[in-house]
Amino acid sequence: MEQKSIQDYYDDDFAICYGCGRLNKHGHHLKSYWDGDEVVCHVRPKPYHTGAQNFVYGGLVASSMDCHGTGAAAAFKHKHDRKELGVDKLARFVTASLQVDFLAPVPIDGVMEIRARLEEIKGRKVIVAMTLTVNNMVCAKGRMVAVQIPDDYLEKYNPPEK
Amino acid sequence: MEQKSIQDYYDDDFAICYGCGRLNKHGHHLKSYWDGDEVVCHVRPKPYHTGAQNFVYGGLVASSMDCHGTGAAAAFKHKHDRKELGVDKLARFVTASLQVDFLAPVPIDGVMEIRARLEEIKGRKVIVAMTLTVNNMVCAKGRMVAVQIPDDYLEKYNPPEK
Repeated sequence: MEQKSIQDYYDDDFAICYGCGRLNKHGHHLKSYWDGDEVVCHVRPKPYHTGAQNFVYGGLVASSMDCHGTGAAAAFKHKHDRKELGVDKLARFVTASLQVDFLAPVPIDGVMEIRARLEEIKGRKVIVAMTLTVNNMVCAKGRMVAVQIPDDYLEKYNPPEK
Repeated sequence: MEQKSIQDYYDDDFAICYGCGRLNKHGHHLKSYWDGDEVVCHVRPKPYHTGAQNFVYGGLVASSMDCHGTGAAAAFKHKHDRKELGVDKLARFVTASLQVDFLAPVPIDGVMEIRARLEEIKGRKVIVAMTLTVNNMVCAKGRMVAVQIPDDYLEKYNPPEK
């Protein structure tokens, strides 16, 4: 049986992200998985995702880290709270801040592997460190402060239609 | 006559970025313009660029800032060196680091305006501060360290085929 990704456990209401939502028909469908104490994803750029010739544009690196980081944050918090995927409701996180350091051009013909490591949990806030490698070469590092979406979010921003 | 964007002055070899390259057939074609001492761009999200319902996914904010920031860096350096657009060759910049602070959900039915302000120039390095507003509401702030692409970049990474 294929392992389910973190994003597969998002509530339907929060599964429409262009970057990682399984219900977004146009999107990238980024998927993040537990791997030991880390959360990992793999992204294969399209040939037209160029920045300069032969290399990936920075936006794909940043946007992949944004989706992967919030997914990893949800997974880390879930585990920290001793909850189980598929049993307990998975909270959704949004990015408060994202720092990306670009260390080397990212080859467009490789697969980007992004590994997320838990740095710290402070209440509803989760700090995630990320490393992006292609063929084991470190090309970028990221650091995200993610915040758990308030329970009244949907009510506040999407009141039911009358 | 329509004002030409900063990206319209990029060399063909550096105009294939998925985010802002005029020669990328699949891309977003982000365009940045001088406006007083600032450089501004406007991005209209597609209806499917959702993060949560009614709001833009973070990746579009980060990737737009990435392209706009490097465009603004090129413009700031060009002006600093007393060069003229359309007369002197415009140098191309890449991102060394990008920090994005997400301050409020970005409405998906608005136009994102990103204003870039020069913070500092240190040799080949340009530091750019950015503010993203929708309908005059500040939704995100960014800070980029951009670095001028070395003159031997194409030779180094794309040696001419023999």
